[in-house]
Amino acid sequence: MASDIRTQELKKPIDYLFRRLHQVGVRSVHGLPGDYNLVALDYLQKTGLHWVGNVNELNAGYAADGYARVKGISALVTTFGVGELSAVNAIAGAYSEYVPIVHIVGYPTTVAQKDGMLLHHTLGNGDFNVFSRIFSQISCATSLLNDPHEAAMLIDNAIRECWRNSRPVYISLPTDIVQKKVEGARLETPLELKYAANEVEKEDYVVDVVLKYLHEAKNPVILVDACAIRHRALDEVHELVEKSGIPTFVAPMGKGAVNETLPNYGGVYAGDGSNAGVRERVESSDLVLSIGAVKSDFNTAGFTYRISQLRTIDFHSSYMRVKYSEYPGVRMNGVLRKVCAKMGKLNIQSGPIPNNDIPEEELKSPEPTITQAWFWPRLGQWLQASDIVITETGTANFGIWETRFPADVTAISQVLWGSIGYATGSCQGAALAAKELGIKRTILFTGDGSFQLTAQEVSTMLRNNLNPIIFVICNDGYTIERYIHGWKETYNDVQPWDYKALPAAFGARRGQTITYRVETKQQVNELFIDREFANSDKLRFVELVMPWDDAPVALKMTAKAAASRNSEQ
Amino acid sequence: MASDIRTQELKKPIDYLFRRLHQVGVRSVHGLPGDYNLVALDYLQKTGLHWVGNVNELNAGYAADGYARVKGISALVTTFGVGELSAVNAIAGAYSEYVPIVHIVGYPTTVAQKDGMLLHHTLGNGDFNVFSRIFSQISCATSLLNDPHEAAMLIDNAIRECWRNSRPVYISLPTDIVQKKVEGARLETPLELKYAANEVEKEDYVVDVVLKYLHEAKNPVILVDACAIRHRALDEVHELVEKSGIPTFVAPMGKGAVNETLPNYGGVYAGDGSNAGVRERVESSDLVLSIGAVKSDFNTAGFTYRISQLRTIDFHSSYMRVKYSEYPGVRMNGVLRKVCAKMGKLNIQSGPIPNNDIPEEELKSPEPTITQAWFWPRLGQWLQASDIVITETGTANFGIWETRFPADVTAISQVLWGSIGYATGSCQGAALAAKELGIKRTILFTGDGSFQLTAQEVSTMLRNNLNPIIFVICNDGYTIERYIHGWKETYNDVQPWDYKALPAAFGARRGQTITYRVETKQQVNELFIDREFANSDKLRFVELVMPWDDAPVALKMTAKAAASRNSEQ
Repeated sequence: MASDIRTQELKKPIDYLFRRLHQVGVRSVHGLPGDYNLVALDYLQKTGLHWVGNVNELNAGYAADGYARVKGISALVTTFGVGELSAVNAIAGAYSEYVPIVHIVGYPTTVAQKDGMLLHHTLGNGDFNVFSRIFSQISCATSLLNDPHEAAMLIDNAIRECWRNSRPVYISLPTDIVQKKVEGARLETPLELKYAANEVEKEDYVVDVVLKYLHEAKNPVILVDACAIRHRALDEVHELVEKSGIPTFVAPMGKGAVNETLPNYGGVYAGDGSNAGVRERVESSDLVLSIGAVKSDFNTAGFTYRISQLRTIDFHSSYMRVKYSEYPGVRMNGVLRKVCAKMGKLNIQSGPIPNNDIPEEELKSPEPTITQAWFWPRLGQWLQASDIVITETGTANFGIWETRFPADVTAISQVLWGSIGYATGSCQGAALAAKELGIKRTILFTGDGSFQLTAQEVSTMLRNNLNPIIFVICNDGYTIERYIHGWKETYNDVQPWDYKALPAAFGARRGQTITYRVETKQQVNELFIDREFANSDKLRFVELVMPWDDAPVALKMTAKAAASRNSEQ
Repeated sequence: MASDIRTQELKKPIDYLFRRLHQVGVRSVHGLPGDYNLVALDYLQKTGLHWVGNVNELNAGYAADGYARVKGISALVTTFGVGELSAVNAIAGAYSEYVPIVHIVGYPTTVAQKDGMLLHHTLGNGDFNVFSRIFSQISCATSLLNDPHEAAMLIDNAIRECWRNSRPVYISLPTDIVQKKVEGARLETPLELKYAANEVEKEDYVVDVVLKYLHEAKNPVILVDACAIRHRALDEVHELVEKSGIPTFVAPMGKGAVNETLPNYGGVYAGDGSNAGVRERVESSDLVLSIGAVKSDFNTAGFTYRISQLRTIDFHSSYMRVKYSEYPGVRMNGVLRKVCAKMGKLNIQSGPIPNNDIPEEELKSPEPTITQAWFWPRLGQWLQASDIVITETGTANFGIWETRFPADVTAISQVLWGSIGYATGSCQGAALAAKELGIKRTILFTGDGSFQLTAQEVSTMLRNNLNPIIFVICNDGYTIERYIHGWKETYNDVQPWDYKALPAAFGARRGQTITYRVETKQQVNELFIDREFANSDKLRFVELVMPWDDAPVALKMTAKAAASRNSEQ
């Protein structure tokens, strides 16, 4: 009986869509209102979803990305043309970095589309498919809900593809379709999100090959990278790392994937940009189990890996590769599980102990200035278990390589896509997801130049009563660009803002925020022992003053490589 | 001799490109630095171009749009992927509304592209053409400068197409091409920007047909719309209006096209949203010379035109239409010139005198509240000749229909594309163009909700020492959306900001800005007689407080039509 009632109740596509999102774990929806999506927004509350109400669509897209990285999937609602197109960069970034965002776009009626009406928010040429064509370049599925009969199926398909491919999907929702009828009964069967199992014989074959080389190896290492996180293989990875005891390292994009307090955790490997002692250890290993690698320039300190493919086993979401033998269609998850189950006793040489100490010369230096070399290792001593740490492309996401994390830290940065401004938007979404999950602290590190692009997302944090800790590194402009080209050129300068004044200008209520400015190591140390700062439920906003011409070593190295590639003739 | 020297000097594609931009009138280039465009930026100063240095690419795109509307063409420089994609909405808007922007994107080297390298700012799939494919949907030409031998030709072609079609073009500039050699001698021949002349016989034929109906008409009217501005037919239009004495009206998107102090100017025609008395006059005319019409929903108060095609002659940039006879390939400019030259004596009945007075009941009302019905006519009394007036989509760009302009006012708004946030970005570009042209005042009207999307563009204004007058209409959220759907829904609310505090937070120097807040009609009147406010060289920032539930009549009408279309089943 209950089933019949539900079937009758749930007959509108919008209702169906929002309930499906709720089923897969979405609790908050990012976006902005626009006349082609307003009616849809009426259904949020009824389906148990919270409306974030961002300040602009690019920020909303970045926030949806951050939310998805913490909660597994997210949703973004924009309006036709003007709304959705402002989010293109955010969706492209999510596509590039494998982040699952369900992007729902309010469309004009199917009748207006068919008639090619000269409506606002169109290009004036009667073509209503231009924008979906644009997004089809950066989405793993595009579902245009022009027919109520196929709406439920297309919605299910889009959400499933989004989850399984861990990439954005695009759903158009015309205003005349929003309230049509769809078969509600489907909702009683949850979406099948599990990855298809590997073909057994094939998988067993690969596992045997992996085990053969693993048993032959004298000093294997594990190297964990981004795709292990994004393609949801962390449980399997952790099992392997803990059970095998093999020395384990992370690539920069894999930072946070491994519990850094484990005895066999060794630090960050990034070729020449590795933590002290790590390069030698990884590159002298006779077998590298490389899990979910993304060997991009910024993730390898400018392509400075020196690991032979003859000593590498690659684990990926859609294939395995052992030395030069490829096994298409074999997903890492199943292989990892079986390797763990069958591996038995291994030859293991211990790895280096992570060395993320503050360098000796920094400790001895009488200079009060906060240097990059001093700050990032120091930060590791202040972080707490389960913190979410977001670092902007620039000094922050290179600096964090030197920060050793407590257990269960989630690290967020955009090492491949590298869109500055991302981190501040992402922080809003991550902080909201954290709140939903009962995680206490979300901590953002951004630069002054980067912060300016998306600064008003602080307003959305205030509106949603979020309390992240925001560090704006005040170092007078685009330092990462200076290291690539234009050391003192004015195009790398930015307008000097009174950053601390912004939370109040963005409408912070009395007592909703605390602001700080730290200019010396001493002040950082004081801040880091301040218990209110560490544990307050207020939004904390810190101006962290650092020299304009200072950068983490890894950034300097990577920037040099980029500059030399750019000037190759 | 001089020629030889120049030819030798000018051998780099970037140098060539910037000099061509200078030749067509560009003096400032909008955009942000990024590692793939940094070397290019070194050439700005040498070629006499000013670098604006915007805070983000969407704002930069909007600003380039505003600059182009005042100066005729503009340039925008972004970086590959992350930079350019943030500007998609702005470029789509320029495409929709016929605004010529030369968009230059710094690309990775041609070698890296060929090798499909896994570089930052890519989708990680080795495809370097995704972004140009996206922009090809919203650009009238796409020039990929992958070969120095064709670079000069492709640059010339792109700029020429941009100017002639009055739409954005896309130029990719790989870092290894920037400093290669091109034939500098071409620079000595200016680009041919003139529109191709109509075929004489065909043009004469159309002119005769137009004259025939014009002479038969007993009470013709002229209706001027956006394309007359965007396709550069204003000289011809003015000649026709002044010489013929025919009662002349403008559509909302054509506001500013006609000198509103002329005796035969009659007001805004927009169907049911027309100025008082205008609808009756236009719709009872026996011949409407409709010049550059864009009959979009927001430009016609929800498709409420009642002008029969049997009484209409349409003038367009690519065709003419007399009643139902079409003449493809005939451009309005030449036709207008010949019609003027040959028209002789016409039958003319005088039109209505523009009635943009403050309504009687508003004048009599004892209520101190600033109403929309009172404000916009009142504004007309304060504007000065040559002002540039930018109105945001919402209450402002509907309200301005009731404002009668002094001579030579340039009006900027995005009636067709209607992207909120546009106006603030556009204001920066327009104010900069105004400064270059010696125009004294640029005046922005935006709403609080809209302002939040792109607020930090005020920082760019300060950085460039611009002094626009900014009115932020504080009416608690997205009023235009409320009139469409969700009257009191929280999704139409915005976070309450302390708007006045922003210029200081954005780094205004002492004395660089003055801020105001006006809450009553009396305070508006006082502000409008304040000579410092009217003529200061400081940036002036006004919080203009109006009721959340008030809107211009034309907006109410248009929103109602949109709501009813959206809910059609």
